[in-house]
Amino acid sequence: MKAPIVLLTDFGTRDHYVGVMKGMILAQAPGARIVDLCHEVPPQDVRAGAYLLRVSVPYFPRGSLFVAVVDPGVGSARRILWARTARQQFLAPDNGILGWLEEPVLDRREVVRRPWMPELSATFHGRDVFAPVAARLARGLSPLRLGPRVREAACLPFPEPIRRGGGVRGEILAIDRFGNAATNLRATDIRSPARIFFFRRDLGAVRSHYAAVPQGSPVALIGSSGLLELSVRGGSFARRFGASPGDPVESRA
Amino acid sequence: MKAPIVLLTDFGTRDHYVGVMKGMILAQAPGARIVDLCHEVPPQDVRAGAYLLRVSVPYFPRGSLFVAVVDPGVGSARRILWARTARQQFLAPDNGILGWLEEPVLDRREVVRRPWMPELSATFHGRDVFAPVAARLARGLSPLRLGPRVREAACLPFPEPIRRGGGVRGEILAIDRFGNAATNLRATDIRSPARIFFFRRDLGAVRSHYAAVPQGSPVALIGSSGLLELSVRGGSFARRFGASPGDPVESRA
Amino acid sequence: MKAPIVLLTDFGTRDHYVGVMKGMILAQAPGARIVDLCHEVPPQDVRAGAYLLRVSVPYFPRGSLFVAVVDPGVGSARRILWARTARQQFLAPDNGILGWLEEPVLDRREVVRRPWMPELSATFHGRDVFAPVAARLARGLSPLRLGPRVREAACLPFPEPIRRGGGVRGEILAIDRFGNAATNLRATDIRSPARIFFFRRDLGAVRSHYAAVPQGSPVALIGSSGLLELSVRGGSFARRFGASPGDPVESRA
Repeated sequence: MKAPIVLLTDFGTRDHYVGVMKGMILAQAPGARIVDLCHEVPPQDVRAGAYLLRVSVPYFPRGSLFVAVVDPGVGSARRILWARTARQQFLAPDNGILGWLEEPVLDRREVVRRPWMPELSATFHGRDVFAPVAARLARGLSPLRLGPRVREAACLPFPEPIRRGGGVRGEILAIDRFGNAATNLRATDIRSPARIFFFRRDLGAVRSHYAAVPQGSPVALIGSSGLLELSVRGGSFARRFGASPGDPVESRA
Repeated sequence: MKAPIVLLTDFGTRDHYVGVMKGMILAQAPGARIVDLCHEVPPQDVRAGAYLLRVSVPYFPRGSLFVAVVDPGVGSARRILWARTARQQFLAPDNGILGWLEEPVLDRREVVRRPWMPELSATFHGRDVFAPVAARLARGLSPLRLGPRVREAACLPFPEPIRRGGGVRGEILAIDRFGNAATNLRATDIRSPARIFFFRRDLGAVRSHYAAVPQGSPVALIGSSGLLELSVRGGSFARRFGASPGDPVESRA
Repeated sequence: MKAPIVLLTDFGTRDHYVGVMKGMILAQAPGARIVDLCHEVPPQDVRAGAYLLRVSVPYFPRGSLFVAVVDPGVGSARRILWARTARQQFLAPDNGILGWLEEPVLDRREVVRRPWMPELSATFHGRDVFAPVAARLARGLSPLRLGPRVREAACLPFPEPIRRGGGVRGEILAIDRFGNAATNLRATDIRSPARIFFFRRDLGAVRSHYAAVPQGSPVALIGSSGLLELSVRGGSFARRFGASPGDPVESRA
C-alpha cells in the first residue's frame, strides 16, 4: 500500500470543493489513498495552515504527499511548488505555508503547466492543478519533471519567542476546539522553575497534566506538539479568558 | 481498483447517519471505495443537492456511483431511483435532485424492495435502502435487476436565465464558504462587453481573475464550474451585500 | 479486505487531531481501512458518545474495531480498555462509554504501556495510545497481549424508562441535526394504543411515518434505532419545542 495523499485546505466541508478534488485524484490515480488532515483552516489564513502542518506532518507515514491548498493568491501569478523534506513531500502555493515545518526543505520545484492538466479555472486550482499533479505523483511521475528548481520561496518563518531578562516572551499560535491555546514556546524555551503569564495573569507553574489542578482552573502544560499550551481543566481557556492567536504569553523564571 | 461510491447527503456530520451508511456499505461490500462529496446540504434542500451534483459529477471517475440522499419524502410513497448517464450512475429519491445534471439520463429504474434489504425504518432509508443497494451494485449486481424502468421522473429543471432586451437575467444558485455567489448565468449567456448587476448595483465587467480588482472590491468572474460568480477579493460577497440564493443577477450589454 | 477501524471522537474537524490519528494508524498499518463514525461528539460528553455507539455499532461489519476517544480523564490515572462483544471489538477510555451497547461485553482488557508506543503526551492519547494500538491490532496483534483482564469497568448504564400506572416515563437522549429528539423508550416499552407526552404536551399516538401528520405538525414515531423519536414534519422538534437531552417524555395508555 502506497503512502497517502494528505489534504489540508481552507475549503470547509459545506461545498463540493474537497469532494471534487478527491474525484479528480481518483479519476487519474484510482488506487490512491487519500486522507483528510483538515479542511477548516480559516479562509485564506496561511499561518493557521502552517501551524497545522507543523504539528501534524511528523506523525504521517514516510513518503506521504501533503497537498496544502490555502491559497489567497489563486488566479494571480503566484507559483505552485513541490517540496521535499527527508521524510515527506508537499504541494502548496508559494506563500510560506511550508515555512513552519520542523524538518528542512531539501528540494523545491515550481509546478509548471503541462498538457495533461485540465483547462485552468481562475479560482479552483485545487481541482485543476493540485489534484492532477498529486495523482501523477502517486502514479510514479518523477517530481523532477514538474518544473525547474526554485531557490527562493516565499518566506513565513516560525515566530520565534523572544528572550528578555530571565524570561521568554511568546504568543498564542492557535486555539483548538476545546478552547486550548497553543503557543510558540517550546518545552526547551522554559527554564524551570518558571511561572507562565497570559497578559498579566499569573497561571502558575507548568504542570504535567490537566488533573494537577482542580476542575475549572487554568493550567499551563506542554501540549501534544511539544509547545506550551494554556487550558482550563474541563473548560475552555479561550472562552474564559478571551484569548486569540497573537496574544502574548510569557514565561518568567 | 473499482470506481468509487460517492455520498451526497443532508445528514451533516454531528450524528451517526453518514458513518452508519458507510458501515452498512462495508458490511456488504468490504472492498468498496467510498468518497464523501458533501454532507452539509441544508436539510431537505433538494435544489442545493441538485446544484452540488451538477458542479461535481463531471470530475469524478467514469463508473462512479453517486448516492444522493436529500429526501424530504422519506417514509412516504416517493420512489427511489437508479439512473445512468453515459459516464456515471446514480441512486436518489425521485424528487428531481438529478434534474440539474449536464449529461442526459439514459436509463432510469425504480428500486423495489428485495429480500436482501434489511427491515425498513420509517426515517433512515440511507441505511436501509441506499447503502445496501449501493453495496450490491459495487459487488456487481446488474442495475436491470433493481426494478422496472421508469419513464417519467419528478421534474426539477435547471433554472434557465431569461433573455430580455440586450441582456440576460439570472439568479444566485448557491453561496459557498467564502461568500462567493454562484449564479445560473453561463459564460455563453453573457455577450461581451457586458456589465453585471446584482439587484441595481453595477459590478462592472466580467474579469478573468480576482486580482483584476483591488483588495476588498467586488468582482464578477466565470467560476470554476463555468457559471458566473460574484465575489469580493479577499472578502465575502454574501456578507458584504447580503446576497442569498434566488437573488437576481443581470448581465447587460 | 479486513474489517475497518471505526473512529468516534469529540475532536471535531477544525483541528489536526483526527487527521493525525489517521496518520499514526497508517504509519504503522499502511493497509488499514479507516472509517469515521463521528467526530462531533460534544466535548467530553461521554453519554453522547455512548448513544452514538449504541445506535451505530450493529450496522458495521463483523470484526470492526471501534476506537472511541471521548476522554475527559486524559492524562489522569484512568485506564484505557480493549473490549470485545460477540461481533466486534472496541478501544476506549474506562469511563462507561461502552455501557450503552446492546450486545454484552465478553472480554475486557487494560491496555498497558509497551515499548512500541511513542512517548506519552499529557493530552493526546488518541495519537499516542489509541492509534498505535489500533494499528497493531489491525496488523494481527492478539488482544490478549495488550494487558491484564479487567473485571470491573466504569459503569454508565443505559437510562431505563420507568413504568408507572399504565404508562412509562423516559427522557430525551439526543437531538440530531434535523431537530429530531431520540428518546430511551423502545417500541416494546409502549403499549398500544398509547399517547405520547413531551412534558405536558400531548403529541398524539405513535405514527408509522412522518407523512401521517400534516406538514409542520409534531409527530412521534419509532426512529431508525428502534427508539421512540419526536419530530416535526418538515421542521425541527428541538427548535419548535425547545427540547434538550434529559427532558421527560411519557407514554400513557
